[in-house]
Amino acid sequence: MKTDEAIDLIRPHLKQARFDHTLRVAETAVLLAEKNNEPVDKVELAAILHDYAKYFPLEKMRREINESDLPQDLLFYHHELWHGPVASIVLEREHGITDEAIKNAIRYHTTGRSGMSQFETILFVADYIEPGRSFPGVEEVRTAANSDLYHAAWMALRNTIQFLVGKNGAVYPDTFYAYNNLTIHLNGGN
Amino acid sequence: MKTDEAIDLIRPHLKQARFDHTLRVAETAVLLAEKNNEPVDKVELAAILHDYAKYFPLEKMRREINESDLPQDLLFYHHELWHGPVASIVLEREHGITDEAIKNAIRYHTTGRSGMSQFETILFVADYIEPGRSFPGVEEVRTAANSDLYHAAWMALRNTIQFLVGKNGAVYPDTFYAYNNLTIHLNGGN
Repeated sequence: MKTDEAIDLIRPHLKQARFDHTLRVAETAVLLAEKNNEPVDKVELAAILHDYAKYFPLEKMRREINESDLPQDLLFYHHELWHGPVASIVLEREHGITDEAIKNAIRYHTTGRSGMSQFETILFVADYIEPGRSFPGVEEVRTAANSDLYHAAWMALRNTIQFLVGKNGAVYPDTFYAYNNLTIHLNGGN
Repeated sequence: MKTDEAIDLIRPHLKQARFDHTLRVAETAVLLAEKNNEPVDKVELAAILHDYAKYFPLEKMRREINESDLPQDLLFYHHELWHGPVASIVLEREHGITDEAIKNAIRYHTTGRSGMSQFETILFVADYIEPGRSFPGVEEVRTAANSDLYHAAWMALRNTIQFLVGKNGAVYPDTFYAYNNLTIHLNGGN
């Protein structure tokens, strides 16, 4: 799938603000891909497609998860976590997106996961730091992303866990495992 | 094993301050057991024994874990997490503590785990709130423990995760699974 086709595919599914966000994620992801020697075209395609399922009806997402090999425990967590995994399976089934790197980047862009590839980490970080984001701590993550992609991802994961636990929310296991994994690798552990 | 025997068993292994802590945990656990209709004698025994391995040499703890069925990923996390699991296996092997409720309460007293029994939860909470504890947030957990044991455990887990992530530390999976489990059960999830 080409960039233009991907944009045509997602546009009808997204509100204007989400479409604009998507283009900023793609621009940010391209910059990170160039800096970290990942294939720019593939990264850009993953970024354009990443929020494809963002506004799917909850019932459709629930059904897609139920009928798939995706972990069923997703359904016990906030539905905000569903659109990445659902997009990855629908894009493969209906639009021929079979590339594993692209599929996994889309699947894990919200939660992260332990042992994320650099390709996945680029989309995860780009989604967090794109220029439209303004939540507390984002500027430090932007700065980190300029010099150390994985350190930036670790900071984003840490911020996300603090945010969720601070509002008494559950944290999806992939997010905790991603945080622990990078904590142990970047900081020498515990 | 009787209470007196348990005290005689642990005393040589603990510094005075830790021994005093242990007696306070036991007193607190007994009160919680009475309030929540758990067997007082068994809870007291678990509490007296819970820190038995606290000052075992790290190399001995590492070896015990290596040679046991305990999850080996413990070794990637802070050694503070080792003494509960190690105590549970050494107390069984060398001192005949075979009761599953007691063993599991000792094993999980530091980390907690998803689906903790009420018995386990009593020791987990008693260890957190015994009268010698003075860290931030402990008073709220004490208050909660008077009316809702599991809510108190959830607060302790939340505080622990916030503390660990706040100092950029890893969080052992059992701890965040315990937190998620109680978050979802107590608060209706996410």
